[in-house]
Amino acid sequence: MAHQEKATRGVEWRITLGDGSSKSLVPDAGPISRIWIGLKGLIAGLVLKVWKFLMRAWDIGVDDPRKVIHCLKVGMALTVVSLFYFMRPLYKGVGGNAMWAIMTVVVVFENTVGATICKSLNRVFGTTLAGFLAFGVHWVASQSGQEFEPLITGASVFLLASTATFSRFIPSVKARFDYGAMIFILTFSLVTVSGYRVDKLFDMAHQRISTIIIGTSLCTLVTMFICPIWAGEELHILISRNMDKLANSLDGCVDEHFNFNGELKDSDKQPDKKLLGYKCVLSSKATEESMAKFARWEPAHGRFNFKHPWQQYLKIGASMRSCAYCVEALNRCIDSENQAPEFTKKHLSNICLKVSSNSSSVIKEVAKTIKTMKRSPSIDFLVEEMRSAVQDLQNELNFLPKLLSPPEVLHPESKETETTSTTHLLEVIPVVTFASLMIEISSRIQAIAETVEELAELAEFKGEAQEKAKQNQPDTNRIVASRLNDDQQTMKALERV
Amino acid sequence: MAHQEKATRGVEWRITLGDGSSKSLVPDAGPISRIWIGLKGLIAGLVLKVWKFLMRAWDIGVDDPRKVIHCLKVGMALTVVSLFYFMRPLYKGVGGNAMWAIMTVVVVFENTVGATICKSLNRVFGTTLAGFLAFGVHWVASQSGQEFEPLITGASVFLLASTATFSRFIPSVKARFDYGAMIFILTFSLVTVSGYRVDKLFDMAHQRISTIIIGTSLCTLVTMFICPIWAGEELHILISRNMDKLANSLDGCVDEHFNFNGELKDSDKQPDKKLLGYKCVLSSKATEESMAKFARWEPAHGRFNFKHPWQQYLKIGASMRSCAYCVEALNRCIDSENQAPEFTKKHLSNICLKVSSNSSSVIKEVAKTIKTMKRSPSIDFLVEEMRSAVQDLQNELNFLPKLLSPPEVLHPESKETETTSTTHLLEVIPVVTFASLMIEISSRIQAIAETVEELAELAEFKGEAQEKAKQNQPDTNRIVASRLNDDQQTMKALERV
Repeated sequence: MAHQEKATRGVEWRITLGDGSSKSLVPDAGPISRIWIGLKGLIAGLVLKVWKFLMRAWDIGVDDPRKVIHCLKVGMALTVVSLFYFMRPLYKGVGGNAMWAIMTVVVVFENTVGATICKSLNRVFGTTLAGFLAFGVHWVASQSGQEFEPLITGASVFLLASTATFSRFIPSVKARFDYGAMIFILTFSLVTVSGYRVDKLFDMAHQRISTIIIGTSLCTLVTMFICPIWAGEELHILISRNMDKLANSLDGCVDEHFNFNGELKDSDKQPDKKLLGYKCVLSSKATEESMAKFARWEPAHGRFNFKHPWQQYLKIGASMRSCAYCVEALNRCIDSENQAPEFTKKHLSNICLKVSSNSSSVIKEVAKTIKTMKRSPSIDFLVEEMRSAVQDLQNELNFLPKLLSPPEVLHPESKETETTSTTHLLEVIPVVTFASLMIEISSRIQAIAETVEELAELAEFKGEAQEKAKQNQPDTNRIVASRLNDDQQTMKALERV
Repeated sequence: MAHQEKATRGVEWRITLGDGSSKSLVPDAGPISRIWIGLKGLIAGLVLKVWKFLMRAWDIGVDDPRKVIHCLKVGMALTVVSLFYFMRPLYKGVGGNAMWAIMTVVVVFENTVGATICKSLNRVFGTTLAGFLAFGVHWVASQSGQEFEPLITGASVFLLASTATFSRFIPSVKARFDYGAMIFILTFSLVTVSGYRVDKLFDMAHQRISTIIIGTSLCTLVTMFICPIWAGEELHILISRNMDKLANSLDGCVDEHFNFNGELKDSDKQPDKKLLGYKCVLSSKATEESMAKFARWEPAHGRFNFKHPWQQYLKIGASMRSCAYCVEALNRCIDSENQAPEFTKKHLSNICLKVSSNSSSVIKEVAKTIKTMKRSPSIDFLVEEMRSAVQDLQNELNFLPKLLSPPEVLHPESKETETTSTTHLLEVIPVVTFASLMIEISSRIQAIAETVEELAELAEFKGEAQEKAKQNQPDTNRIVASRLNDDQQTMKALERV
């Protein structure tokens, strides 16, 4: 029998059951090898998954080495703080409470300097305030006798925890002291409740606060002095990079619409990437807000003073988003089914391209103003140029009917001509929509330029006085050169996205 | 002397200085009262500020009583967990490690059920995993002799902390296990490092894990069974409420453009509020994402199964935002300086209003589908109606030239007519832009309806079979009634914003 043949391959185990029949315990070799193959597949799949995961992690690290540096900084800070356990004299000073220093480092160490300082201050002040309050409550409770002590303690924990939790819902508190409120609740509960059992409450509190201060100071020092990542600088770079992206996607969008990328279709990915730059602008609101929130905790660093107007960056971001909404609408014009006929497109393409190139050079100039933190001598000139291009576009729109209606004017044969003209207007609609969106975009770009001008005033950007002489005769060669330079930079930045 | 007169009013203190001159220590009554007035002003200002702050807090509480309930829940959970300190038998079981239970409650208790469960599971698994690893490392370190122990411990802390910190940058880990990774670092460092000093390491670890499990279970129970706030339900409500807002601001925008609110100008605030509803849609991306993130940790609740397709809500949100971008562009048409002449507006107003009312009723019907979780029998009909209205609008645009060119066709006197026609086309541009934006919006609304249809399929919404019979003859009375009802609800919702 086939079954017996298989069974002889391995050692055979038999159990004689109660009813006299016997059953082989050797599983068929077939299933085993099948299981083995399945297992191998499973393991291979798992290895592949892990490998992919590691590759992705590697990419993230290569993409932004500062993340790797941040991780090493965390590891370093933790190792340093562990010394409190390893070195006898240090351990004697703080004892088992050294764990609070470790805990503080783990919880407080954040990616940016601002976030770390914000959390550190919140932790120190939250702990101190809660500690004092808890002492007061503990004293009152201990005076009121054995029976009432748990009651008073419990009630105070309930009341203060509820109130502090509620305060976290208030926007002004949430923006600055969210973490502090949590630490307040934590410390208050721990100290009040521990007071019921621990005798040397004051020693404990003293040790805890000092270990927390050690932990926060260590974090602040490491984060500030070893390859610091400043939230303010990040915000600054984010805004100027987003501006470049916006300018590029505006350019790309107009090029696409007038089919000037027809020849470039072989490098398909390039225009897509360019086109979708505005999406970064649309989606970066939350990042901007958190960066601005942390930036105001940061001391003066690099080119930024302590009171740098970070809130103004949020306004710039908002005006950029308002412009990006329009670019989004413009982008849809490309996909729109009823495209305009070639001749009307040809008619408007030059002026539209001019408007778009002028608009995007205004954005790029504004981005440069932010990047260099110097007032641009040519921005007024560029805005004026953009305006005049918009005026030209409007004039061209005026002339559109002439292009459409020649048959009408020459041969006024009632019905027939009307249909021709009708068809024409309908065909022109996409172009007209496109053009009026361009006009709207340029007015929003002007708004961006104004918010940046406000920033320049608030932050006292320099460079106006020295270059005022040149203002009336802008060095166009320089502008063109810088524009090319900007383009290259942006392409690099986009490749990194 | 005036000075003496003043001095006599109070008790006078004099010190005879070394040089024989004497000086009055009584400060002038003038400065005192001035300081007093200043102080009173300061205190009054402070009281006013505190009062305002409290009023705002009160408003927040009245606005959403669930926030108050959440705070009471936190207070309650903390008080319950404090019992471990107060009751001797409980305290004997876990000892000083009871503080870990308190800490867990403070840190883990979140507003929504999903967030609490997510953090609880992260905390438990992070702690357990780190605990086992730390035991392993501690064993290896203790085998390698007194000298190498601190070295091995320190190196392992550095390595694992860096790796775990890096893993928090990987999007897939960040989305689910961000908190778990932090807890992993915390526990690993604490256990490894404490192991150097603490003898009964196993007892300590055992007690900590059990207290953490006690804390997380308590949080999960309280958050799930006392007035639970489900992240999933919040997301569900947010999406349907935002749809209503979108519909209302679309309606309001079109009304405003055709000046139908001229009579309502006395209640100035109403249209503004309505108009700006779409801004909620634009700004709710982050909220939606975090809700969806937490919703998938939630068990089945109310009308939602465990595997409810929460990700689809994000798609719906994205399609709504894409529509809101266009509404934003439309909204700017109202503010645009060069408004169309009255007669062209009049010509298009009826059909534009029809498109907008049809579009918004599609959105409202779709919102109702989500609210009731029942497939709408009339949605196909409504979409078809919207499409035909769009077709009508396109036809009307076809007829625009007839309205514009009559003088041209009747008196073809070259130059002069051209100018008339020219002016006309330019004047028509805003209306054409407005109309083509309306067309674009309606196509995006169709996209919204499609994503909701996908949701209905994924979540197996009911109601199609029962009402299929009615599908061909929708009960318009019912639709109108429900529309009115929706309007009222949305107005209430808007007032709460």
